[in-house]
Amino acid sequence: MKTFHSLLFALILALVSLDPSSGYSRRKDERIIREYKREQELNHAKIARDLVHRANWAAVGSLSTNERVKGYPMVNIISIDDSDANNRSTGRIRFLLTDLDFTGPDWQKDNKVTLLFSDEQTLRCKEGGKDPMEPTCARSMISGQVKKMDPSDKSYQPSLDAYVRRHPAAINWVKAHNFYLCELEISNIFVLDFYGGPHKVSASDYYAVSN
Amino acid sequence: MKTFHSLLFALILALVSLDPSSGYSRRKDERIIREYKREQELNHAKIARDLVHRANWAAVGSLSTNERVKGYPMVNIISIDDSDANNRSTGRIRFLLTDLDFTGPDWQKDNKVTLLFSDEQTLRCKEGGKDPMEPTCARSMISGQVKKMDPSDKSYQPSLDAYVRRHPAAINWVKAHNFYLCELEISNIFVLDFYGGPHKVSASDYYAVSN
Repeated sequence: MKTFHSLLFALILALVSLDPSSGYSRRKDERIIREYKREQELNHAKIARDLVHRANWAAVGSLSTNERVKGYPMVNIISIDDSDANNRSTGRIRFLLTDLDFTGPDWQKDNKVTLLFSDEQTLRCKEGGKDPMEPTCARSMISGQVKKMDPSDKSYQPSLDAYVRRHPAAINWVKAHNFYLCELEISNIFVLDFYGGPHKVSASDYYAVSN
Repeated sequence: MKTFHSLLFALILALVSLDPSSGYSRRKDERIIREYKREQELNHAKIARDLVHRANWAAVGSLSTNERVKGYPMVNIISIDDSDANNRSTGRIRFLLTDLDFTGPDWQKDNKVTLLFSDEQTLRCKEGGKDPMEPTCARSMISGQVKKMDPSDKSYQPSLDAYVRRHPAAINWVKAHNFYLCELEISNIFVLDFYGGPHKVSASDYYAVSN
C-alpha cells in the first residue's frame, strides 16, 4: 500500500526525470528532493511533538524487576508534561516517579524505557472514525533513558511548577511519597501517521520543531 | 497511606481479638477472614475484567527486536476484544497482529508481553477528576504469552467475528496484510484500584468472574 507521501515523492521523481537535465539542473533537482525529504522529516517530528504535548500521560515500558514478571516488559501509566512557563510545548518529557511503583525500581536496574503516545489517548481517533490500531491514528514510540533531575539545577523548579499546573494531584505525591522529577533523554523516536511503515525522527529534529 | 480495605481488615482483626476465642470460634474467625480476603480478590479480578472489556485497545510491551532499539522494551498500541457472540465479556484477550508491525516480530523472538489497561483510556478518570497516575484511576497490567489461534479451531471464527464487530477496520487488515488472530495466555495480573499498592489476581479468579 503506497503512502500519499511516497506517491508525491514518486511524482517529483517523474517530473525530475522528464527534465532534460544539465549537470547544473541535476544538482538543483537533488536539492529539491533533499529539501522535500527534510520537510517530511520535520512533519513527522511535529506530529511527535504534538502527540507529546497533548498527552497528559504515557504508557511506559520498562524491563521488569518485579519478581512475579522478571524478564518481562512491564507497562505502566505515568503522568507527563512538556510545558514551559507559558504552557507551550518544549518536547522535554518530564514525569514524577516513585520507587514504590513499578517503573521506579526498573529504570534503576536497567535504564531503557519506551513511552507510547497515541491520538487515541484523547479519543481523537475514535471521534474521527479511525480504529486505534490503524496507522492513520497517529502514534509515536519514544525510547531513551530516565534522567533524575537535579533540584539545584535552575530548570528544576520551573519544570516542577509546570508539571503541577498540569497535574494538581502531584502536590500530594511530592509531599507524601518520595516522588522525584525526571526527564527522558531521548535516544530514538518512531512516528506512525499513515500507511507505509514507521518514520524515524532524530531527537534534534524533534526538539527543533517550533510552535 | 492506609487503604480502606486494609483498614477494614484491621477492624475485623481487632474484633476477632476481642472475642474470647475457643478453638472452635478461632477456626470460625479464620474462615471469616479467609472469605473476606477471597471476596476482595474477586473484586480486583472484576476490576481487571471490566477494564479489559471496556477497552478497545491495549498498550502492549514487548522485548524489542528492532535494530534501532534492540534490548529496549517496545510499547505499541493494539486493538483488542474479549467479547462472546452476545458482546459479553469473556476475559479472553484477543487481537490481530502482523509481522510488519513492531509487536509481531518481537513476540516470536521472546514471547513475553505485558498489556496495560487504564480507566483513562476511556477518559473515565479525567471525567471523574482523577489524575491518570493516581492509584484510584484503576489500571491493570496483564502479562503473558502470545498464542496464535488455530483457524481450524471451533472458537476461531466466532472470535474473529466478535473482533471485527468491535473493530470494523479489521476486515481490511485480514485481507491485505497477513494479520493473524492471537489470544493472550495470561501468566500474571496486577490491579491497582486504590492506595496501598498493587493486588495480584490469578488467571483462574480473573476468568471465574461472571457478568
